[in-house]
Amino acid sequence: MSTRLSESAQACLKSLSDLLGPGGYITDADAQAPYLTEARGNAVSTPLALLRPSSTQEVAAVVRLTAEAGIALVPQGGNTGLVGGALAAEGSLLLNLGRLNRIREIDPLDHTMTVEAGVILATVQQAANDVDLMFPLSLGAEGSCTIGGNLSTNAGGILTLRYGNARAQVLGLEVVLPDGQVWNGLRRLRKDNTGYDLKHLFLGAEGTLGIITAATLSLVPRPRQMETALVAVPDVTAALRLLKRLRQASGDAVSAFEIMPRFAIDGAARYLGEQNDPLSEPSPWYILTELTAGTPGDALRDTVEAALAEAIDAGEATDATLAASGDQRQKLWRLREGLPEIGRKVGGALHHDVAVPVSRVPQFIERANQAVAALCPGARPYPFGHLGDGNIHYNIARPDSDDPADRDAFLALGERIMRAVHDVVLELDGSISAEHGIGNKKRNELARARSPLEIDLMASLKRLLDPRDLMNPGKILPQ
Amino acid sequence: MSTRLSESAQACLKSLSDLLGPGGYITDADAQAPYLTEARGNAVSTPLALLRPSSTQEVAAVVRLTAEAGIALVPQGGNTGLVGGALAAEGSLLLNLGRLNRIREIDPLDHTMTVEAGVILATVQQAANDVDLMFPLSLGAEGSCTIGGNLSTNAGGILTLRYGNARAQVLGLEVVLPDGQVWNGLRRLRKDNTGYDLKHLFLGAEGTLGIITAATLSLVPRPRQMETALVAVPDVTAALRLLKRLRQASGDAVSAFEIMPRFAIDGAARYLGEQNDPLSEPSPWYILTELTAGTPGDALRDTVEAALAEAIDAGEATDATLAASGDQRQKLWRLREGLPEIGRKVGGALHHDVAVPVSRVPQFIERANQAVAALCPGARPYPFGHLGDGNIHYNIARPDSDDPADRDAFLALGERIMRAVHDVVLELDGSISAEHGIGNKKRNELARARSPLEIDLMASLKRLLDPRDLMNPGKILPQ
Repeated sequence: MSTRLSESAQACLKSLSDLLGPGGYITDADAQAPYLTEARGNAVSTPLALLRPSSTQEVAAVVRLTAEAGIALVPQGGNTGLVGGALAAEGSLLLNLGRLNRIREIDPLDHTMTVEAGVILATVQQAANDVDLMFPLSLGAEGSCTIGGNLSTNAGGILTLRYGNARAQVLGLEVVLPDGQVWNGLRRLRKDNTGYDLKHLFLGAEGTLGIITAATLSLVPRPRQMETALVAVPDVTAALRLLKRLRQASGDAVSAFEIMPRFAIDGAARYLGEQNDPLSEPSPWYILTELTAGTPGDALRDTVEAALAEAIDAGEATDATLAASGDQRQKLWRLREGLPEIGRKVGGALHHDVAVPVSRVPQFIERANQAVAALCPGARPYPFGHLGDGNIHYNIARPDSDDPADRDAFLALGERIMRAVHDVVLELDGSISAEHGIGNKKRNELARARSPLEIDLMASLKRLLDPRDLMNPGKILPQ
Repeated sequence: MSTRLSESAQACLKSLSDLLGPGGYITDADAQAPYLTEARGNAVSTPLALLRPSSTQEVAAVVRLTAEAGIALVPQGGNTGLVGGALAAEGSLLLNLGRLNRIREIDPLDHTMTVEAGVILATVQQAANDVDLMFPLSLGAEGSCTIGGNLSTNAGGILTLRYGNARAQVLGLEVVLPDGQVWNGLRRLRKDNTGYDLKHLFLGAEGTLGIITAATLSLVPRPRQMETALVAVPDVTAALRLLKRLRQASGDAVSAFEIMPRFAIDGAARYLGEQNDPLSEPSPWYILTELTAGTPGDALRDTVEAALAEAIDAGEATDATLAASGDQRQKLWRLREGLPEIGRKVGGALHHDVAVPVSRVPQFIERANQAVAALCPGARPYPFGHLGDGNIHYNIARPDSDDPADRDAFLALGERIMRAVHDVVLELDGSISAEHGIGNKKRNELARARSPLEIDLMASLKRLLDPRDLMNPGKILPQ
């Protein structure tokens, strides 16, 4: 406890310590460590303390105490975010929601589940599966991210094409407001037009307007057939024609449609030591697609096989393989899942999480590649991601050189390259943050991405709900 | 033009008349008439004038002029609302959006359409159909309601079970704010996590926070198979078991699941002179269900026939018929569509648009029937509607008596009956307005339906965006 703290702040910390006990009020450096460093290791929180309350009532009490003392709170889920949304600056408190981890209720007839914010996404998925239903949100970090973080960042992932993003899966919320009041909006209604729909204020607000402590989620029937295919495609335009063909042929059964460049295979061999090349000839681009149907039988497999044969005839694809087993499916997905790992191993990569209208992805990739080549001729873009919903992770590996100076020169260009990529995105009416959010990393780019009118509206909502700027300050809104 | 008007108000009206011309500034009583009386004929607007601007720029100019003069604006779409949301009180201006009727853009590859607020819903549906896609919003008034009204009231209808309500179909909005600024939020992105999602403020706000002038809508592939069935069911609980069976057997292909009591058939015979009884034996309840599949062929029909046979074996249904032609389908739907007409012909009926969690509909109907019987023994409830999403139109016909005094006694109980029905709804965590909205008709019930905290939050949003209360005043928020 720093001696520079005011008396009221010190009293507040004492009250928090009394309230939460040793398991909930943590100042020991080793115990804090897993919560402090952000996922890519680029920044570290320096909070007054780490708080781990275990109930909504405790969260509300924390908010009341800190509001009184004027201390800022930074909510945190699984600490898997990539834009610094859960970074706690000096003088603030880090509020980890991981101990709010109860599944309060599952109702299979209503297709609903009410869960607390700290439940791991994979646990939500499994609980739905256990009652023969599905929670249709899936993303790389699902084994450690929490549903509260997913909802606060309006997470996307691989199923958005079919089921929408995290926001679309929510029927009701429980939120602790900046003044410590608990809003119980845990409705489980499919239709409710009684005034303004308040839950949308808090979904995707990254904890800047209040703290989501629980949610009522909407579930869907569990699929009975699943087909996973790796398809070699000549270019991105051909890939979009393939998407349209598969959606039409299958009756809109495409649940994932991921694009990867050849780098996914070559990079896995070189940087991860993994030999995983399921097709006989190399291709500049690959599509990893998954289709599901709600009825059992072989109909989906027949449909996918026929559509892929037609796609090859039409020049939309050059080769394809369907997974014949769960192991084969895992092996195909390993190609896609390895891409973020390759980025880390390259030792120098830039990341962009952007979206454009689906039809403009080919233009985007072409123009962004030109812009990057102009700034840094040796840089190696490897755009990949959720082509089906227009969300591309436009990542760039450093020039292929053993000279550390080349790496440093590349990274020194990071800001300029990022702005050039975002310029292309904005020219194409796209988004500079498709699914990761704004956090503290993109807040100054936000002023370029949204109009002054939009920024004003956002700022006025922030002032209305959190006039003292104590809820995750320094996030989302431009400085 | 009333002489009681202030000089500034008179100057404003003159400016509006100059701006909009004779086709856009209407004071003639006959020309105004179609816009003044609400759909059920229970109330009439008395505006200073009827305004019919023909572009977003004209709407913005109207808002700036009226804001300056302090005159209230009441936006109106197709004037089909049932809660008085488009009623203009004395001293206000009625702003009909019907001349903003352009489809600005359709992009089949992106599955998007950008339309102006005054486009009729059926026109939107047809335009989607013309490019082999579907706009999945359908409701009784679709031939005359407008998309702007649908979005401002977050309309529901028969497809909500499968596709969600109006809000779920929107990617972007264009809104004229209360100060006359135009917010261009016409994005067509599937993923965009750049700060607060402002469109949700205006969707379902019934024009109290600004005026929606255009929207970018999301389209889905057009179904290739459709099956329509009328199923006799012994009770509401059996109907819910049938719903679960059909969803599972078809791979969640149920797009409509409407419940009707026997009154739909007997009432059509008696009040509409229509003999339409598709099944051989009378049943207390009927389900009208529609399933669609995206692939061509007979598979869906086979699935539905098998599932219905199993449902009969399981006691969930007693008889069923599948439409074999478009004519037969129309005839089955006629039963459902006749119910609102029967209500008008009965000459004395009460209406409630409510929702409860799907699993609680049987309890709701049973308890509401008891409450109504206690207040008015001869009253004849005929609950019907969207069982698949828990939205029941709990309507009640007057006692079956030729004595006008009985009718008047029944209608005099209207307020008490309404409160008793809403009491049951609220006990079951339901909504007192599932899809019609609040308007001016339910605003005082809202204070019972939502917590003081929620009402406060709504009121503070209203004050933030429309501090002078000039946007559709007297709607939604309790007095």
